[in-house]
Amino acid sequence: MHLTPEHFTSEQRLDDGVLERAFTLGAPGPLGEIPGILWTPATASAAAPAPLILLGHPPLGLDKMYPRLVARARHAAADGFAAATIELPGSGDRPRWPEAEQARADLRRAMEAGEPVSDEIIDRLVLPMVDQVVPEWQTALDALLALPELGGPVGYSGGVISIGTRLAVVEPRISAAVLFAGSFVPRAIYEEARQVTIPLHVLLQWDDEGGHRQAALDLFDAFGSKEKTLNANMGGHAGVPQFAGDAAAQFFTRHLR
Amino acid sequence: MHLTPEHFTSEQRLDDGVLERAFTLGAPGPLGEIPGILWTPATASAAAPAPLILLGHPPLGLDKMYPRLVARARHAAADGFAAATIELPGSGDRPRWPEAEQARADLRRAMEAGEPVSDEIIDRLVLPMVDQVVPEWQTALDALLALPELGGPVGYSGGVISIGTRLAVVEPRISAAVLFAGSFVPRAIYEEARQVTIPLHVLLQWDDEGGHRQAALDLFDAFGSKEKTLNANMGGHAGVPQFAGDAAAQFFTRHLR
Repeated sequence: MHLTPEHFTSEQRLDDGVLERAFTLGAPGPLGEIPGILWTPATASAAAPAPLILLGHPPLGLDKMYPRLVARARHAAADGFAAATIELPGSGDRPRWPEAEQARADLRRAMEAGEPVSDEIIDRLVLPMVDQVVPEWQTALDALLALPELGGPVGYSGGVISIGTRLAVVEPRISAAVLFAGSFVPRAIYEEARQVTIPLHVLLQWDDEGGHRQAALDLFDAFGSKEKTLNANMGGHAGVPQFAGDAAAQFFTRHLR
Repeated sequence: MHLTPEHFTSEQRLDDGVLERAFTLGAPGPLGEIPGILWTPATASAAAPAPLILLGHPPLGLDKMYPRLVARARHAAADGFAAATIELPGSGDRPRWPEAEQARADLRRAMEAGEPVSDEIIDRLVLPMVDQVVPEWQTALDALLALPELGGPVGYSGGVISIGTRLAVVEPRISAAVLFAGSFVPRAIYEEARQVTIPLHVLLQWDDEGGHRQAALDLFDAFGSKEKTLNANMGGHAGVPQFAGDAAAQFFTRHLR
């Protein structure tokens, strides 16, 4: 699939020259089409294609995530990179996904009851999402990389860490990844982590309310990559400090140039 | 005590314009005088004094450590910082320190026998060193900061992490510290760590042959600082990657300017 003009549903030029284009990719099946956004720096052209960073995010809907995503995209553009994101299945304007909603409800119930979160709930919460989203990211990559203004190595950044882990294993076009260790990790993903070989920069919020610290350390240990950095900072889930974002950007500059 | 010309025992200008001066500070007592080295960037002057970074290092002797120290000093100078280091007691040309040698011999014996390293050995190995070296660093600071070409906030970088921890607690002139988590940590130091409040950047080599990973994570957790970053990278004790050194340098640029 290639992105053609009819896939672009809107277009605007941001004040820093970044071109923001919304797109929709057809995805057969009950989970509907895949909306997404592409940001390209003013300098990107067929003669000087920009490397692409895929922006992962939590399943809260693109509308809600937009302010943070556009900030990350502008940062990437300032470093000469394009950035793109897609709506997760069951989020935003995409059709509801009853199984995912059920898993989230079960998680909430367990946490509100003060019960330990079982492996069974974590598996139901994360694995179907990984199975669904990773091929969607690949579909988006196929479409995006056909644009003449995009080219070179691809990075993946943030979002649900299990999705980033699977993508790093199965998608050879991704050369480097910034992963955010702030979500539940199914046991199966630790095994997949051993197969990851690309350079990784793993962000951990030391006081993440989700209590994901030990899981994050275990997952970091499991990654098979020869170059991997754990960058842990103080603060809660949403409190990644500016300088940690800068360090992640420098990681991409080292690896995508 | 002020550094006066008679304290400087040699002086040379490196090819990048950095001025390297060896000095000796009088220290009464059986552990003798304190030799040290000061590096100042070509731009440092009384009109534009350079902030100072104290370079910690393991007790292997300044001669042996010189290549790595001068590389760190040149990096600091390129960022506009002066750097200084001192010989540790019992190392290099300083008088032998029988108690420290005994503790190191006991450590070696325990490790070669495959025994767990006892808290008693760790205390004997580290605490007298901390008690002796921290006041020596303070003596050096008194002398160095009297030089008109040095001024502004002071950073501490590297070396035995227990020394850096104690210094961060007791020495108010130190504004920020890069600590290297690669040595045994006495229980008492975890308590002191809670009193540290300055910004910290903690380097950990994930595969440190000394097996210090869990101690490093516990110590990082214990530090009382509101801004602290753990930067963990692959490789053994001596394998800190270049980009981790660059990240530490950026930490100082954020905090000492």
